[in-house]
Amino acid sequence: MAGIVGGLGTVLVTGAGTVWGARSGRGRCYGEPTMTNTANVAKGLEGVLFTESKLTFINGTEGILTHLGIPIQDWAEHSTFEELSLALLNGKLPTAAELAAFDAELKANRAVPEALVEIIRHMPRGVHPMQALRTAVSYLGLLDPQAEQTTEDARRAISVRMIAQFSTIIAAINRAQEGHDIVAPRMDLTHAGNFLYMLTGKEPTEEQARLFDIALVLHADHGMNASTFTAIATASTLSDMYSCITSAVGALKGPLHGGANEAVMDMLDEVGTPDKAEAYITGKLDRKEKIMGVGHRVYKYFDPRSRVLRDYAEVVANKEGKSNYYQILETIEKTVVDRIGSKGIYPNVDFYSGTVYSDLGIRKEYFTPIFALARISGWCASVIEYTRDNRLLRPDAVYTGERDQKYVPLQERQ
Amino acid sequence: MAGIVGGLGTVLVTGAGTVWGARSGRGRCYGEPTMTNTANVAKGLEGVLFTESKLTFINGTEGILTHLGIPIQDWAEHSTFEELSLALLNGKLPTAAELAAFDAELKANRAVPEALVEIIRHMPRGVHPMQALRTAVSYLGLLDPQAEQTTEDARRAISVRMIAQFSTIIAAINRAQEGHDIVAPRMDLTHAGNFLYMLTGKEPTEEQARLFDIALVLHADHGMNASTFTAIATASTLSDMYSCITSAVGALKGPLHGGANEAVMDMLDEVGTPDKAEAYITGKLDRKEKIMGVGHRVYKYFDPRSRVLRDYAEVVANKEGKSNYYQILETIEKTVVDRIGSKGIYPNVDFYSGTVYSDLGIRKEYFTPIFALARISGWCASVIEYTRDNRLLRPDAVYTGERDQKYVPLQERQ
Repeated sequence: MAGIVGGLGTVLVTGAGTVWGARSGRGRCYGEPTMTNTANVAKGLEGVLFTESKLTFINGTEGILTHLGIPIQDWAEHSTFEELSLALLNGKLPTAAELAAFDAELKANRAVPEALVEIIRHMPRGVHPMQALRTAVSYLGLLDPQAEQTTEDARRAISVRMIAQFSTIIAAINRAQEGHDIVAPRMDLTHAGNFLYMLTGKEPTEEQARLFDIALVLHADHGMNASTFTAIATASTLSDMYSCITSAVGALKGPLHGGANEAVMDMLDEVGTPDKAEAYITGKLDRKEKIMGVGHRVYKYFDPRSRVLRDYAEVVANKEGKSNYYQILETIEKTVVDRIGSKGIYPNVDFYSGTVYSDLGIRKEYFTPIFALARISGWCASVIEYTRDNRLLRPDAVYTGERDQKYVPLQERQ
Repeated sequence: MAGIVGGLGTVLVTGAGTVWGARSGRGRCYGEPTMTNTANVAKGLEGVLFTESKLTFINGTEGILTHLGIPIQDWAEHSTFEELSLALLNGKLPTAAELAAFDAELKANRAVPEALVEIIRHMPRGVHPMQALRTAVSYLGLLDPQAEQTTEDARRAISVRMIAQFSTIIAAINRAQEGHDIVAPRMDLTHAGNFLYMLTGKEPTEEQARLFDIALVLHADHGMNASTFTAIATASTLSDMYSCITSAVGALKGPLHGGANEAVMDMLDEVGTPDKAEAYITGKLDRKEKIMGVGHRVYKYFDPRSRVLRDYAEVVANKEGKSNYYQILETIEKTVVDRIGSKGIYPNVDFYSGTVYSDLGIRKEYFTPIFALARISGWCASVIEYTRDNRLLRPDAVYTGERDQKYVPLQERQ
């Protein structure tokens, strides 16, 4: 009653007296009947390894996250979103010349076609921003003469444009949905600074732009999360980049994936004022209720991203004054770590990012699009890496339905 | 050096002296480091079982395909696309009253919002019809006040509308792209007949409508193919129906999935006339070249769908005269089965569907959207079934990249 994902990519499954041989050397033989033994199901595909990757390594027990072998803390401290994006696309640290060229390429692609701006402007008011983003990215594909090309060079060129244009699209959606004029990009600002500028119409301070840049760095990639996996599933049919990224946006939109920091903000709003935070959390812990932004399926120690974000947020808070949200967070963090930190339950990155975004003037409905603004780099890099040695993704389901049924004529049915 | 997908959903992987225990009882423990042993990779997830399903059973060795335990031949002969769609959504054969109500619901939803017709009308000319379909479905979500609801009832209601509206959207895209007026749906025709009417502006004969209906029945579902799997991956984050179906359209678009019958038509065009078919195929076989529409990863005997389609196509051909395409196909089939049928290589469903569609006046660029027109039912039914007992899909990659790297300052890089 065990299924063995064997050493040479073969799959042997024994159960109910049947042995499925791995004759093809690449998984269960196609042509074999759909299996009907439920003992072999790897629900959620957890722990199933389906490919190799050189991008991201995670050790949640020790709170380690690296890109290209370099710890996330170093990326946050020394690098920028532009550099990390290029490093993920190229699989190595760029030279100064390569980075300058990439930065120029991003800037040259910040503007989006006027036809897309029109589409965004005329979207109905009150739609979910991720529905709007999904639609805008899909439409962008209609306007790109290179959209159908799927060579690695073409995928890369499209990726650079999409990384640049996600920023403009998300800001435009926010402005249009709020009934404001859409703000054209500026070329003298960083990727992060320009986004905040297009979003608010106001040039951010250097600290604000840098804090937001760090937030983008921290969210740029995180291994085979559900949206990256969905992008890869689409790519595995050798579909185009716009299809892959549209799929990823749709997957990130789900509350089990992208919606967590929005839920943290709901909690902070529920707490209300800093003086009520300790009693609120103590009550939750006593009643063993779930606390949003605390705990992570991967990290059983501090999420390294949350430490970085917390430290930078503190610098900004000390300089510009601690917001209500920030003070509530501080109290919640202290209470949570004291009470349940020893069980491996710590604040995660969503715990801080919501407060940071909110203090930067971003409405919570836009937290998930901002997650996409960062993760677009990881999506693109992962699709490019996967399609270099592509294999169509086609797992299987165990059939548990009826057998040997007859089609009963309509008039004879009960 | 083997990974075991064990009997209770646990995963044990041994390799390089390490044993990853299944402490959580639901896959490799999160918090464990990303694995770095490439011996355990199930490439393409082939043979990996990730869920249960009661919809479709396939035995490729014996050429068996059933929906709800009923052979595909019976569905094709006795049923309709409307009935099979409802049966898949409900998991059982409907009563006459249920089917009548469903049919009325489909008809009531044939029209799409005028705002979407405008979007389709203004899409750039010459775009890939699947890019257009992906964008239109995504936009449809912006216009549906129920789009964000993810209860089973809501998913079902949205599914019915999407099944009805895919037909109108695909026909409208075709008309707009060809510079013709968009044809409004008629309520007195079947789903299949109305689609052909909207596509061509001409009411089809009864035989044509029935043949197309059978083609839709044959393509409505086929287990965990890549597009259905992608829809489920999106759904697993509890994202909305429009996101799921947009993802599926993007995955179906890839040439490894949806594009096969288009390739068959390219081959028929290359052959040219029926008298050249035998020499063409004999040459291909002698040179051991791939023949489009022949062989299938699942079926090692006749694809049961291809038999059904062939038989009906023959009836129509005998009545209306055999087209050039049809005559070429007949010759190719005979040659292929004689020469390599004994190796389990037979014509598949794509071999006949392209000719059928072409003889119905459909351009080959629209064969994949028509695949979507049928498969929408399988996608919706599969998403509804999966989310009833949802589990976030999150497989993992083996990390094969660099370790313990340092961030080298930009100016010090070579």
